[in-house]
Amino acid sequence: MNTPLVLNEDRLFPTEPGERAIARELYNSVYNLPIISPHGHTDPSWFSGNANFSNPTELLVRPDHYVFRMLYSQGVDLAELGIGRAGKAVDPREAWRLFASHYYLFRATPSRTWLDYVFKNVFALDVVLSDKTSDLYYDTILECLAQDSFKPRQLFDRFNIELLATTESPLDSLEHHRTIAESEWGGRVITAFRPDNVVDPEHAGFNDNIDQLESLTGESVSSYSGYLNSLRVRREFFKQHGATSSDHGHPTPATADLSEQEAAALYAKVRSGDFSAAEAELFRAQMLTEMAKMSIDDGLVMQIHPGSFRNHNQSVHENFGRDKGADIPVKAEFVNNLRPLLSTLGNHKNLEIILFTLDETNYAREIAPLVGHYPSLKAGPAWWFHDSPEGMKRFREQMTETAGFYNTVGFNDDTRAFLSIPARHDVARRCDCAFLAGLVKTGRLSLQDAHEVAVDLTYNLAKKAYHL
Amino acid sequence: MNTPLVLNEDRLFPTEPGERAIARELYNSVYNLPIISPHGHTDPSWFSGNANFSNPTELLVRPDHYVFRMLYSQGVDLAELGIGRAGKAVDPREAWRLFASHYYLFRATPSRTWLDYVFKNVFALDVVLSDKTSDLYYDTILECLAQDSFKPRQLFDRFNIELLATTESPLDSLEHHRTIAESEWGGRVITAFRPDNVVDPEHAGFNDNIDQLESLTGESVSSYSGYLNSLRVRREFFKQHGATSSDHGHPTPATADLSEQEAAALYAKVRSGDFSAAEAELFRAQMLTEMAKMSIDDGLVMQIHPGSFRNHNQSVHENFGRDKGADIPVKAEFVNNLRPLLSTLGNHKNLEIILFTLDETNYAREIAPLVGHYPSLKAGPAWWFHDSPEGMKRFREQMTETAGFYNTVGFNDDTRAFLSIPARHDVARRCDCAFLAGLVKTGRLSLQDAHEVAVDLTYNLAKKAYHL
Amino acid sequence: MNTPLVLNEDRLFPTEPGERAIARELYNSVYNLPIISPHGHTDPSWFSGNANFSNPTELLVRPDHYVFRMLYSQGVDLAELGIGRAGKAVDPREAWRLFASHYYLFRATPSRTWLDYVFKNVFALDVVLSDKTSDLYYDTILECLAQDSFKPRQLFDRFNIELLATTESPLDSLEHHRTIAESEWGGRVITAFRPDNVVDPEHAGFNDNIDQLESLTGESVSSYSGYLNSLRVRREFFKQHGATSSDHGHPTPATADLSEQEAAALYAKVRSGDFSAAEAELFRAQMLTEMAKMSIDDGLVMQIHPGSFRNHNQSVHENFGRDKGADIPVKAEFVNNLRPLLSTLGNHKNLEIILFTLDETNYAREIAPLVGHYPSLKAGPAWWFHDSPEGMKRFREQMTETAGFYNTVGFNDDTRAFLSIPARHDVARRCDCAFLAGLVKTGRLSLQDAHEVAVDLTYNLAKKAYHL
Repeated sequence: MNTPLVLNEDRLFPTEPGERAIARELYNSVYNLPIISPHGHTDPSWFSGNANFSNPTELLVRPDHYVFRMLYSQGVDLAELGIGRAGKAVDPREAWRLFASHYYLFRATPSRTWLDYVFKNVFALDVVLSDKTSDLYYDTILECLAQDSFKPRQLFDRFNIELLATTESPLDSLEHHRTIAESEWGGRVITAFRPDNVVDPEHAGFNDNIDQLESLTGESVSSYSGYLNSLRVRREFFKQHGATSSDHGHPTPATADLSEQEAAALYAKVRSGDFSAAEAELFRAQMLTEMAKMSIDDGLVMQIHPGSFRNHNQSVHENFGRDKGADIPVKAEFVNNLRPLLSTLGNHKNLEIILFTLDETNYAREIAPLVGHYPSLKAGPAWWFHDSPEGMKRFREQMTETAGFYNTVGFNDDTRAFLSIPARHDVARRCDCAFLAGLVKTGRLSLQDAHEVAVDLTYNLAKKAYHL
Repeated sequence: MNTPLVLNEDRLFPTEPGERAIARELYNSVYNLPIISPHGHTDPSWFSGNANFSNPTELLVRPDHYVFRMLYSQGVDLAELGIGRAGKAVDPREAWRLFASHYYLFRATPSRTWLDYVFKNVFALDVVLSDKTSDLYYDTILECLAQDSFKPRQLFDRFNIELLATTESPLDSLEHHRTIAESEWGGRVITAFRPDNVVDPEHAGFNDNIDQLESLTGESVSSYSGYLNSLRVRREFFKQHGATSSDHGHPTPATADLSEQEAAALYAKVRSGDFSAAEAELFRAQMLTEMAKMSIDDGLVMQIHPGSFRNHNQSVHENFGRDKGADIPVKAEFVNNLRPLLSTLGNHKNLEIILFTLDETNYAREIAPLVGHYPSLKAGPAWWFHDSPEGMKRFREQMTETAGFYNTVGFNDDTRAFLSIPARHDVARRCDCAFLAGLVKTGRLSLQDAHEVAVDLTYNLAKKAYHL
Repeated sequence: MNTPLVLNEDRLFPTEPGERAIARELYNSVYNLPIISPHGHTDPSWFSGNANFSNPTELLVRPDHYVFRMLYSQGVDLAELGIGRAGKAVDPREAWRLFASHYYLFRATPSRTWLDYVFKNVFALDVVLSDKTSDLYYDTILECLAQDSFKPRQLFDRFNIELLATTESPLDSLEHHRTIAESEWGGRVITAFRPDNVVDPEHAGFNDNIDQLESLTGESVSSYSGYLNSLRVRREFFKQHGATSSDHGHPTPATADLSEQEAAALYAKVRSGDFSAAEAELFRAQMLTEMAKMSIDDGLVMQIHPGSFRNHNQSVHENFGRDKGADIPVKAEFVNNLRPLLSTLGNHKNLEIILFTLDETNYAREIAPLVGHYPSLKAGPAWWFHDSPEGMKRFREQMTETAGFYNTVGFNDDTRAFLSIPARHDVARRCDCAFLAGLVKTGRLSLQDAHEVAVDLTYNLAKKAYHL
């Protein structure tokens, strides 16, 4: 007999009954608020074209690096899942079986929580995924995906998503966002400005990308000032397609405050292709400050996502490409790194910078004290590996006492896995309500205040922080 | 209708009823023990002059950097609170209104816990502070402060403070401590020796300060040995005014063990004004070792408080001065940094050094192993941003298993906010009892031992560690 | 009256009754599974000779650095315990009294938990150790130790140990392991290959040790390739004595991938005795990679135990020798340090490396992401100072969501204190069941899965990871 798939109604709530009851009460008041997803990586073509998703493997396994990194760590060949350049043609049903037979690996991981939620709530599956139920799953999901009601826009509406932001390079035509905006469909899918490939000299294609900026904007990129102008023009273009934020995925949060002459000389250096790692780092640092200046002018909220060692596994990178689950966090430092930017711009009323980290030691030591002082800084939610029940608990426990709730910005799902969006927001809402319930039960917050905060964390803070 | 202000009788206790009952039992045996406050920053003139406090804003907002840093982070102008050099004349009632209307920002922060305690227990207020109750608060507190029973000495006695240590520079005349000692009032207010401004070459006025040492002591400061003698003389002077400890607020816990010749040459260098950042660091490092040697001779307990990037916000520093909520913690390292001092002096029976940190990663990795081995080392309590329920929990959880309880030193309130002292000690007592209750309920400590430990953490350890 | 010694039946379980019941149910299914002890430091001569242990002090105090480091931190002279080179003859009963009178120092430490378990379950003592019960303890234990049933092999069997690994240098004759294997006794005591003294140029006797390798193996160590061959031969010798793993106690997890020529030149340099600290570090780094290559060939599992500053207390080291409780953890970094090795070998199917750390900040930031991706990496359990209830809790909470359970390897006791082995495994089993119960009660794991995972964490994972 197959094991029934049960989602515990009280999952992620505290275990003490009185505390649990408070969490449940709070959750009941927020669980069905609309979803604001101000930062993520879904594909806008899904919503412009609104084609049916093809099959379970293509939808749920291949785009989800959380899933295939775990499989890979236990000896599953990525090629057998049909992933990567070297991928031979792989029967998606066979790949799904491989996934299903390793599903026990995900016990107690957030992926398991998200997937079970999707299986149950989106596809009405009621037994646990395993080698024995693999085909049942495959057939059920495949059948669903063929229906109109499982098309991207229909799911978007069913998920009660009020706003979804994707992330695009400055070179993107944003045609999908235009198509969506001009369609009769009411769903709000906006872009975000992610300039890494034109501000990071170590990014593949950096120089060509900048040349493309010139073609796109008509601004000459031969000078630093022209280059900055071309970025201003693209930011404006992104704003016209709904963008309210920029996003910066630098190796470190280093910032710089070079003179115009120094910056121009450095630009010439990195454009020449003959530069050191330190010069590349300095250029990225200077560009964070330039982006902050542009934010003050055009109002885009800056997001800084530092501290990931990208493509750490050389062989996987060469054979399967980027974003294959081999990005590993490294230590981050914010206090000295952000100072050049903050010394110049940190008190400006028009500047808003949201800080993310993969190094949890930054929470209590650096980020909470920084955002609890500087009016221009806010703390982004627990990110990536820490977008999990324990990760969120550590985030709240280590941030709240110094930063309060109002220097945080609500939840980001940050996902490429569209179907997981409601699951992820549900986890965040449950974890926040659990945390608030603990505060209420220990006399640190009144129940009345907790109700207000629960709505703020779920909905208001994200709208305010991202200018939505 | 205004929201009632309720202090939950069981606040900060565990939520499981059996565990909570143990915490309550332990707390009942310690909550009214006298307060030992061996490290803090209250103003001794309050107790020598015993003048009435002027108004709520002057007493509760302007000296409390926890309070105004949070307000500033959310866009409140410090000048509107009447803070800083550039401050225009500000009506304290208006400033109080600004504070009151932003009181929701402090939800779930320790400041909120401390303030509510003060409002209720000192001023008998019974509604929550908000824009609607701002004037009620202002009038009530103002009226109280005009009364004799709210004068500093009367509050000191009412708070059941057995001993309060303030912190003074070696250049201080200690006249207020003398006045207090010579008065008929029985309150014990002692000083602590804080030589940062005469041992840190990067401190504003370093050279002039050392010249003043010469005037004060008659010891020539032209030589290193004379300089050291002048410090010995001032330490003795401080001891005569009750000091049992010194306090060292260095950027890092670096120590050095230079030869006499090297140290003398370095002294000449830093006195010349022409020195590098590394030389300044080395001089501070050497001075920690010199201070330890003097401690062995005169018995003052050393406190080391490293790891704060002072005045991080350049514009706030220039316009509003020091201590304006812009000190931000940075990473700290103790194992290599303390080794020069410990290699020479670490096993000396007469030496006691209390280590504090703002970098919680030091707790389990460095400080617990160090204090759990070296007889000269003890761990100070959770400090500053970590003087909070979650901060104290992390401190106990990460320190106790390796260091035990008897290599810790009880609680420090470390505050400039006199009225918050009982509130802070109450939080510490509750948190310690909560932690002990958890140990009892999970079979890691007998109830009998827990009772003994509760008294030790509340009272005995501080008296012993600070030689009181 | 003496205080009764009670071991709470539900110790270390969650406090909420429903959660506790689940923990108890899980624990009941694993508490009496055989003990697999795949990594530790007991003395194989105990089991080859099977002589009676001499007295309580010799058995329980002098070999246990957890115990005497705490005593030393509170002013107890190591010489009074009879420890170290300079040790005068000390009456073990007097030394035991010194220990007993300071037993309160261990409140809430794992040492206390382990010792009470031993006192109660091995020696049937039923009052708490104190100055008043010191002699009762000494006499009771002494009497037990004289009996046949308390000999090492008899205790091994009574403890239900299925396998015990010790750790030896490549220069060891392994005679005791041979004696055990050839005896009629069925106990399985295997060795592990710990080459620090022949791969670390800064190890005392490095050069002489390598010369000994030549005598032992007949391989000339004048060339790098001969040196590597000599290590291959000794690894094979260790395998013949049961070894399934190697163990590497480097200061850092640095790895290198030098060319053969570079490595050979570096070998000549470090053999010459004229090398820098950086060259020593690079040689160790290269040797980790060489060991990994040999592991691929011979199948020994690699354990890397980095990050301890050995013999930090210079005076204790000089007067009392190594391993005297003065090893202090320092920060560790794995992501950059392991990359040279992982770039070459990290995806090899035959390679298995188990990572340990004393720096808990590595768990969520580095180790979980690394082992959750690389098929060659697994995470070792909470180690040394973190082999404790709170340490294990942090390990599970910070590792599980990213690494899952199946990239971990079960429990290691890592002890020199033979009698504590069942106590330590009992703590680990209780802590794991407590963690699982929390997951079940919060809907993150089904009870059925929890039962399976409990057995895996207790027994299966260690056998699989260590190829037992």
